[in-house]
Amino acid sequence: MRADVRARTADRLAPLVDELPAVDLAARLPAGFRCGATMAGIKASGAFDLGVLATTDGPASVAATFTTNRVQAAPVRLSRDHLEVTGGRASAVVSTSGCANAATGAAGDRDQADLADAVAQAIGVPPEQTLALSTGLIGSRLPVAAIRSALDRLVPAGLASTDEALAMLAEQLRTTDSRPKAATVRVSLPNPNGSSTAATVSGVAKGVGMIHPRMATMLALVLTDAVVEPAALRAVLTPVVGRTWNQLTVDGDTSTNDTVFLLASGAASGAPIEEGSDAFTAFAAAVEAVARSLARQQAADGEGASTLITCQVSGAPDDAQARAVAREVVRSSLVKAAIHGRDPNWGRIAAAAGNATLGGTAVPVETDRLAIGIAGVPVFDGEPIPFDKGSLSRAMAAAEVLVRVDLRLGDGRGEAFGCDLTEQYVLENSAYST
Amino acid sequence: MRADVRARTADRLAPLVDELPAVDLAARLPAGFRCGATMAGIKASGAFDLGVLATTDGPASVAATFTTNRVQAAPVRLSRDHLEVTGGRASAVVSTSGCANAATGAAGDRDQADLADAVAQAIGVPPEQTLALSTGLIGSRLPVAAIRSALDRLVPAGLASTDEALAMLAEQLRTTDSRPKAATVRVSLPNPNGSSTAATVSGVAKGVGMIHPRMATMLALVLTDAVVEPAALRAVLTPVVGRTWNQLTVDGDTSTNDTVFLLASGAASGAPIEEGSDAFTAFAAAVEAVARSLARQQAADGEGASTLITCQVSGAPDDAQARAVAREVVRSSLVKAAIHGRDPNWGRIAAAAGNATLGGTAVPVETDRLAIGIAGVPVFDGEPIPFDKGSLSRAMAAAEVLVRVDLRLGDGRGEAFGCDLTEQYVLENSAYST
Repeated sequence: MRADVRARTADRLAPLVDELPAVDLAARLPAGFRCGATMAGIKASGAFDLGVLATTDGPASVAATFTTNRVQAAPVRLSRDHLEVTGGRASAVVSTSGCANAATGAAGDRDQADLADAVAQAIGVPPEQTLALSTGLIGSRLPVAAIRSALDRLVPAGLASTDEALAMLAEQLRTTDSRPKAATVRVSLPNPNGSSTAATVSGVAKGVGMIHPRMATMLALVLTDAVVEPAALRAVLTPVVGRTWNQLTVDGDTSTNDTVFLLASGAASGAPIEEGSDAFTAFAAAVEAVARSLARQQAADGEGASTLITCQVSGAPDDAQARAVAREVVRSSLVKAAIHGRDPNWGRIAAAAGNATLGGTAVPVETDRLAIGIAGVPVFDGEPIPFDKGSLSRAMAAAEVLVRVDLRLGDGRGEAFGCDLTEQYVLENSAYST
Repeated sequence: MRADVRARTADRLAPLVDELPAVDLAARLPAGFRCGATMAGIKASGAFDLGVLATTDGPASVAATFTTNRVQAAPVRLSRDHLEVTGGRASAVVSTSGCANAATGAAGDRDQADLADAVAQAIGVPPEQTLALSTGLIGSRLPVAAIRSALDRLVPAGLASTDEALAMLAEQLRTTDSRPKAATVRVSLPNPNGSSTAATVSGVAKGVGMIHPRMATMLALVLTDAVVEPAALRAVLTPVVGRTWNQLTVDGDTSTNDTVFLLASGAASGAPIEEGSDAFTAFAAAVEAVARSLARQQAADGEGASTLITCQVSGAPDDAQARAVAREVVRSSLVKAAIHGRDPNWGRIAAAAGNATLGGTAVPVETDRLAIGIAGVPVFDGEPIPFDKGSLSRAMAAAEVLVRVDLRLGDGRGEAFGCDLTEQYVLENSAYST
């Protein structure tokens, strides 16, 4: 292959530059919130399993996304109903870990409503101003009496408006996650009058670790003190989730409990952020930076995982199709296993790209236009490119492996996040639930 | 739970009865064909890697289905082109294993055309009357000179019209498959005049084992001596593949080379089988029985697999949606790992069913109508059903585990075939391609 052809291929496969604000991997509680966590006895291990977040000064604006699974857990149904009643306002979120409260029938719905009543009463707000997060075993019931008694201790005395309190909440969300996940961006939001408002966007998340008996759930809570009405908050959250959490896969299974909440307390000064304003753009970028960081932390900590796999796709007809190709590559069991083995087996990447669909329709991929790079090394550009397998294999022995795919069919770009498939994944997930 | 409620649930979850003709797990060459296999040196191991099937008396009618992967191997493109030129007639199939001839650019297409020319010349037919099957490493080239010289030895002297010759072809298709796969049905086809014709439908297949360096391919060749024109043959094959091979999954990755050929030599007596006739119905059932048996043999022999998983779904709005739910259950890594561990963790089955989509649209699943059974034991019917985990776990220690799902939303029924996810799968697929 001629040097200039090789250079052109390398150019096509340069990493896509991340233009988002820098992220601090720490939990920083924005103004207007208080929170805390405790042990309610849901987890047999005695770890933190109950958390509460509350606002300090009236309800926050809320945007939310939930699992697309048709089997939806009781906390998902309750939160969805409450947000519909309030039009996107909430004063508290109650979070339980160790029990999913999914597929528990009408009794499970009553349990979840009981918890909402208890939290609402302790805080002094209507029950429909409460939301719920949960993760754990499908089919098991919440120990309502034990949780109510723990709530009596926690609310309001155990709630604090400190960074440590938010870190405790991140800890409470954990199940077998090897570490808590947090990300913060400080952002300066321009006001129409030329001044600017300092705001914080901070998120905590769990997953995709597993708990006894290993039903994965993806939960995230993103908080901000920026002044944003529910409609503008939803306009931020939907595309951000499309580019971040919906591009995250550990094993291709969507939980019954997946939930993302974005809450804005409005404790920062200034007029509400309007869609289309410069402040909206800056705020949306801050939320996306936090969401992307949390999604990457989740992928890196996937069950049994040793390697974060990022696939970046360019040259698709549009961004949505680029994301579909990226998702298919990081979803492929064969690609995941090859990267675990540091095997630069690019044929599996080509095959995975060729399998991508979007809304049931195949994404166009033309072999003679396709280019593929692994860990910075071009390996295919319409035809195989000779490369040194040993040195590429050594380059793949990193905490993150970047797979680059260029389709040369348009300007669409996108990325997806996953992890390698390991023997440990199978071991963790084949244990008896008994 | 009351005894009559439990009995009603058990009734909903009874196994779906297989009404297809009985299958003989042997290769039986129908009249009108000859075949053979040899070593061409494609596989370093020196195993059979070249096979040829030819007709004995003019071209056979052909129906075919190919991979839906957008990255299509050279043999797939060549076979598709040839069938378009001939309108569904072929006199020979050349089969190579050890090299996929996929993503090899224009050079790979020339290699495949060279082989077609060589086979056509040896048999004395036009090149467009030849088809090709291949499986192996993506991105490597066929050793054309070595294959041509092996073809000179094999055709025509090495071809025979015996059952043993077809068994040799099944052997040649193997890569790391632990055993060859074959299935035969003898069927009596009613003629319009009241007499009947005895016909044979016999298939051989490979997969979903892997070869160095483990790119899965699903190949099947179904032969019959029945008298069927190409259009009627296609009318048989398309729905059969939809109910059998398209319901087979080992790891959710679709190869660049997947191919099913159905060839009818017409060597049996009688008028051509017309669509809608009793003979057509009997013939289609025979083809489906062979296809279903081969697909189940392939699932049971999936990489690293120890258990065949069959999911049967009833009560869906239609059959296609039932099949989509069944496919999602056997595709779920969490379900596969749980069954490997003999873990009756039905929550994962509920979650997988709730994730099913068809053509990009979610399949309706209502939790309060849903019922689930594992290995004959009802475990969920709108709410959890108490069961003895130890004894169900022991019942799951079988060569096949049946998962039954009833949606109670309609009359749609369907099934899918997969295998458990094992540490051995990861080991086999994380090896270096170097």
